[in-house]
Parts: sequence; C-alpha cells; structure tokens
Amino acid sequence: MFIKEIVQYKDKEIVLKGWVASLRSSGKIMFVQLRDGSGFVQVIIDKATVGDEQWEAIKGLTQESSIVVTGIVSEHPKKPGVFEVQASNVEVVHISEEYPIGNKDHGPDFLLDKRHLWLRSRKQWAIQRVRNTIINAIYEFLNYDGFIKIDSPILTPTSCEGTTELFEVPYFEDNTAYLSQSGQLYLEAAIFAHGRVFDFGPVFRAEKSKTRRHLTEFWMMDAEAAFVSHEENMVIQENLISFVVEKVLANNLSELEILERDVEKLQKVKAPFKRMTHAEAVKFLQSAGSDIGDRDDLGADDETMLTKDSDVPIFVEKWPKEIKAFYMKRDEEDEDLVLGADLIATEGFGEVIGGSEREIDYDILLARMHEEKLPIEAFQWYLDLRKYGSVPHSGFGIGLERLVAWITGVKHVRETIPFPRMINRLKP
Amino acid sequence: MFIKEIVQYKDKEIVLKGWVASLRSSGKIMFVQLRDGSGFVQVIIDKATVGDEQWEAIKGLTQESSIVVTGIVSEHPKKPGVFEVQASNVEVVHISEEYPIGNKDHGPDFLLDKRHLWLRSRKQWAIQRVRNTIINAIYEFLNYDGFIKIDSPILTPTSCEGTTELFEVPYFEDNTAYLSQSGQLYLEAAIFAHGRVFDFGPVFRAEKSKTRRHLTEFWMMDAEAAFVSHEENMVIQENLISFVVEKVLANNLSELEILERDVEKLQKVKAPFKRMTHAEAVKFLQSAGSDIGDRDDLGADDETMLTKDSDVPIFVEKWPKEIKAFYMKRDEEDEDLVLGADLIATEGFGEVIGGSEREIDYDILLARMHEEKLPIEAFQWYLDLRKYGSVPHSGFGIGLERLVAWITGVKHVRETIPFPRMINRLKP
Repeated sequence: MFIKEIVQYKDKEIVLKGWVASLRSSGKIMFVQLRDGSGFVQVIIDKATVGDEQWEAIKGLTQESSIVVTGIVSEHPKKPGVFEVQASNVEVVHISEEYPIGNKDHGPDFLLDKRHLWLRSRKQWAIQRVRNTIINAIYEFLNYDGFIKIDSPILTPTSCEGTTELFEVPYFEDNTAYLSQSGQLYLEAAIFAHGRVFDFGPVFRAEKSKTRRHLTEFWMMDAEAAFVSHEENMVIQENLISFVVEKVLANNLSELEILERDVEKLQKVKAPFKRMTHAEAVKFLQSAGSDIGDRDDLGADDETMLTKDSDVPIFVEKWPKEIKAFYMKRDEEDEDLVLGADLIATEGFGEVIGGSEREIDYDILLARMHEEKLPIEAFQWYLDLRKYGSVPHSGFGIGLERLVAWITGVKHVRETIPFPRMINRLKP
Repeated sequence: MFIKEIVQYKDKEIVLKGWVASLRSSGKIMFVQLRDGSGFVQVIIDKATVGDEQWEAIKGLTQESSIVVTGIVSEHPKKPGVFEVQASNVEVVHISEEYPIGNKDHGPDFLLDKRHLWLRSRKQWAIQRVRNTIINAIYEFLNYDGFIKIDSPILTPTSCEGTTELFEVPYFEDNTAYLSQSGQLYLEAAIFAHGRVFDFGPVFRAEKSKTRRHLTEFWMMDAEAAFVSHEENMVIQENLISFVVEKVLANNLSELEILERDVEKLQKVKAPFKRMTHAEAVKFLQSAGSDIGDRDDLGADDETMLTKDSDVPIFVEKWPKEIKAFYMKRDEEDEDLVLGADLIATEGFGEVIGGSEREIDYDILLARMHEEKLPIEAFQWYLDLRKYGSVPHSGFGIGLERLVAWITGVKHVRETIPFPRMINRLKP
C-alpha cells in the first residue's frame, strides 16, 4: 500500500516502504517524515513500543535511509484530515551515507550534476507529478477526440523546417541522419490513413540558445487532423489546454501548494481564449512601448507584455508569411499572411503552442518550397500528399516542458524534464 | 461525425468526409467504399438523386480522391448490422492522380519507399489502430498500478549496457552523445523519488542485423518499481500483457479480422503465464533437438520451439550471469545465475519482455562493472543510488514493435511502426 491511500486506513494497521525525508528525535521518540513516492507522512516511533533492539538500529537512521514501517494510522489530534502512523515495527533496509543535498542553497550546476538525487527533493517531486498528470490528460483528451497515436520517426533524412539547427547522426554506409525537430510532416501523411493523429515524443534542436526556455532535447506533442480549419484548430487547442489545467487542479493541489503556485490564476484558464491578429498584437505592443516591427516575430518581452492583463492565454493569428514555415496555408484575404496561430500563455510564460492550417495546393506548396530553397527531391513524399486526395487540414504542436513550466509556475524549463540536456549539459 | 459512429445514425442524415478506397459504377449508380480514418462504409450514389451536374463531377472520381458526402444511413437489406449511406449530395474535394499502390503484389522496397501512402492500405491501417490500442492499454494499466511517467533522456553520455552498437551524435564543444538504447538506469534513479515509474519512447540500436525482428529505431516501454521482487515483477508483467490483449480483443476485432489474426489464440493469453528456469528450458530444447549449450542464450528457433505447444507466453528465468546485463541481481541460491526473466510470446513471435530484479549492493555492483570493463566514472551517478537509501527493486522493458507484431500476427516488425528505420532504410 502507498501513503496516498492512507485516508482509507484510519485506525488500521498498515505497512509502508519508503525513505526518510527528514527526522528529529526527542530522547525516546523519533519523528520521521516518510516518503514513498506517492506522498509524505509523519511516522512516530516510540522506543517503548519498538523495543530496545530495534531502537538501536533506528537511532542510526539518516536522511534518505530506506525503511519498512508497520504501524497504526491515526488522525492528527489537532489537524483533522492529516494522518500519522504510530510505528509498531521498523525494519531498516539501508542506512544512507551523508546526503549531499541539504537545506542550504546549492547552485544550479551542483544540483544538475546531482540530478539523479535532486529528483527526490520535494519541489522536484511535485513538478514531475504534475508533468505526469499533464501527459496523461493530453492522451485522454486526444483519445476522446478521435486522435490515434502515430509515432513519427526521430532519425530523419532531412529537416522538417529546413533550418540548420540539427543534430547530425552518422548512419550506415556513409549516410547521415538528422534528429527530428518535429514529427509534423509525417503526421500529415498519416491523416490520410487515420483522419486524426498525434505523436508525443522527444525532439531535438542544436540551437546555441542559453535561456531559461531552451533545452536541446525536449518533448513535443504534435496533433494533425483532416478536414479541420484554422478556426476549428484553435477550438481544439483551447479545449485541450482547459482540460489539462482542469485535470491538474483536480489531481495535484498538494503538489501546486508545494510549488507555491497561485492556483487562482490557473482556475481562470478556461476556454474560450482570446484571439488577436499579429497586426493587432504588433499595434498594441508598439503603443505599449515595444520596438517590434510591423512584420517581426514577437520577442519574449513582447509575449509577456501582451498577456500581462489577460486571465486566459491569447492566440496570435494571421502571421506575416516570411516569418512562418513554408507549409502554412495562405490567408485568402491577404496573401502575405498565413493562417497560423501561436498560443501565448499567461503570466509571462510565453508561447506554449504553435499551429496552423496547412497549404493543400501542390503548386503553391512547391513554389513556397522553392522560395525557401528547400531540397525538393527530399520532400517529394510530402508533396505527394497533395496529389492523392488532398484535403483541408490543420495541426499544432505543444512543447511539453514549456507547458509544465507554466502550469507549475517554474521559471526555468530545466526543472520540468527529468534529465535536462542543454548546450553544456549532457550528464548524468 | 465519423464512420465508426454510424450505427447511432440509422435512418438519419449524416455528413462524412473521407477518401475513395475503391469504387465501381453500373451506369447510373456508383458504389464507393469510403474511408475516413475511423472505418469504412459503402456509399451508394444514384445519378437521379444527385442530379446531372454533380454526376459529371462524380464520374471523374478515382481511388484516393477526397469527397464530402451527405446522405441517409440505412441498414444493409441482407446483412443486419452492416450500414450503408444513400448519398443525397457529394462534394468532390480533390481528384487523386493515378494511385501508385494497386491490388497487385508490390515488393517490400517499393512499398517502403511509398510508406507515406502505404499507411492508407487496409492492412496497414488496421495494424496502426491495434498499435494505438496497445499503447493506450499500457498507459492505462501502469497508471492504475501507480506508475508515474518519467521521460528518460535520449542523448546520453554513455551506453546503458556498455555495448558498441550505439549511434554517435556530435554534441557541442567537441563532445559526443550517444542515442539511448534503454532508459532503465535513469528510471532506477527516479524510483527513489516516485516509487514506481515508467518511460515509453524511442530507443536506438546501430546493430547490423537484417532480420524480420530488427529495427534501428524502435519504441520501448521501461518500467521500474521500488520494493518489488523478481517474483512480483513477473506478476506485474503477466497482468499487463493479459490486460493489453484483452483491450485489443475488446476494441479491435474488425482490425484483427482484416489482419486474418487467429483470435482464439489471443483469447487464451491470460495470466498466469508459465515459468521455467533457463536450465529447464535448455534441457527441454536439447531433448527436442536444439544444439543450444548449457549456458547459451536462446536463439530465435529455440524460442519458437519452446512455446510451440503453449497457449500462454513463457517466462524463462534465472539466467547464467555471463549472458545477462551487469545490473541484474544474483540468485542467492546459485551465485552464477541472475534473477532475470525473459517473456517469450506464443506462436513463434519470440521475446517480448526482458526484466529482472536489480543488484542493490554497492560493492557487488561495482565488482560486476569492473568485470564488464565498464567506465566506472561515467556510471558513478548510477552507483550513487546504492549509497543513499538502496532498496530492493525490479523492472522490465517491452519492445513495442515486437508486441504489436505478435498481437497483430504480422511477421515483420517493419510493418508495425509508422516509418521504419533499418540499416538500408532512412526514408521517407
């Protein structure tokens, strides 16, 4: 049984297996904060109850030591709803050496070097629990909405977006593979078989950015759907994000408390979200003091400024085509714009989703690829999709770590992934 | 709405959006087999109903053309439970060029070159639908059983098992990263924070094997649990596999029919599975004519022979330590054996799971690593786990593609993954 189930065992005997998160002793009584991965509970060990022989072993306990505790569950006399365990038997499994991570402030490099241990810290534990809820909520929503998981390949012969920020992998017979930056193009192929599809896996960017929002390896969920318009695409996205936030609020209030997250702000994240064209966003930002140009991408500061007074995330849609990818569909009302939308989170957490309707016309797509100087032959399979039953379709991609950062309120994405990879960080 | 929901719409008007899987025309009536990703349905288009103008466009339809059909759902007069659509309106979205994949037999290279289109074929569609059910069933089982998803890294500084079959990736500042072969060691770190954890992502083997069971990129689910013994580990595995098979039988009978899968054989795959020691397996195989040595690994033929007369998969446990990984726990009854178990599927589909209890003693583990000539410094973080609250624990890894091959009855794993990667195959 696990600590999270303890409420069901009031006044009953249970066995818990876990680690000493902290401990204090007052002569003949020891108070152990026990954690087992599912939660935390106070265990009270009385020398008179466990006997002299066990007490000798128990006296040697240190932080992180592993123990098996048998005891009776009781409700805290002064805090209803809080449960404790009165130990009747304590088996010491392993006495931990002196634990290197203490209560004092450690620098980020020290903690990242010790990531295999740092994961045990209360805050890091809480982040991964929320991440797990977010992952599962995304699956649940997409399953319900008819999306099938199609795992797009990681080893690819060419880049999806034609950038140079690719990791190269020597492949057999003097070939070179590239680590995928996005599975989108492959998902587009799969909609012709399955209608609605998604992938959810690691992607890679060999970008030399050293910001709190960049990892070289991160997790991306791409979704793609046939017969879905730009407008409908945004509705799917806002419903998905609302659903995910709702699930976290339902399952992880205690974790959010550990993270000191402002829960009221999350409670307001409900569809429909706001919509604003790129032109409107630029106009607003310029009036607010940004030096953004009329056809520029939004900077991090612009994103923060834009959502500063908004309770819900904002879709910025209809972007200048030259700053967006070649596969986005032109806006028929203004051919210099594309029907893409970025979803900007609240509270300065920036872009969490990028999506668009896709160009479906073979000739227009080919012309766009020539403009971008893409290697046409390598993309012929992708162009094929516009030859054999082309259909209107849209899709979007969620960067998992940025979503986790926003929902947990953690400032740096390196804490949102179990083992972060950055320019200068490949270990452990 | 989607074709899979059609049973709810008998005698009602619906709109379906999809592709022409096949068609035949008898003068003034056209029969279109329509597919929309969720299923297949026959659409009957009567010239008299749709009118001359639409009929002209409809006459131009080809296989794979995309259409939007409005019509009334009716039950087939002679086949109860089979539904058709009597079209009242047909909008042609795109006329497909002549489709390169026909009914005639194509060679595997041709089909793999056209994988982006081949995915649309009925059989390939069915395989991916079953794969999707399997993926979701694994998540459902593990969530229910208290496992948290912990994404292990793909870019790693060293190999998990110290083999040389690694893809190298030039990293920043003249570093080299290796693509992960397994997330297990990282999951072992995470159990100390979360108790029970799993990952589910792509792994890579630069193996020069060209068999029907090898891919260079494939999906692996690793699970790891604290305070779980070798015996309990096998129970989790057999319950998981039974659950997955049950879910496929509940959700994908029509797909299994397309795949001509012997469903009766699957219905018998129920826990408990058989258990047999490696020594017993070898003795049986030798008596059955295999030339396997007493301390050898099982070959593919051995695996087939072993399960030939078994309705359920077989755990082969307690292996000679020299043919298994360094981290497996020794059998206390025979120090030359380890508490590992491979699960061998029925019907000649071979190993689908490898698992073991893990060594928890620092000194024994270190000695094993020296024996295997592993770079100790690179694995110090892993050894650390035995210093700070070491606990008994076990885990296992499922190769998704082999599991899908077995459950679908597909002989070659290249058909079980959307975009297979093999020695000579990196495209599309």
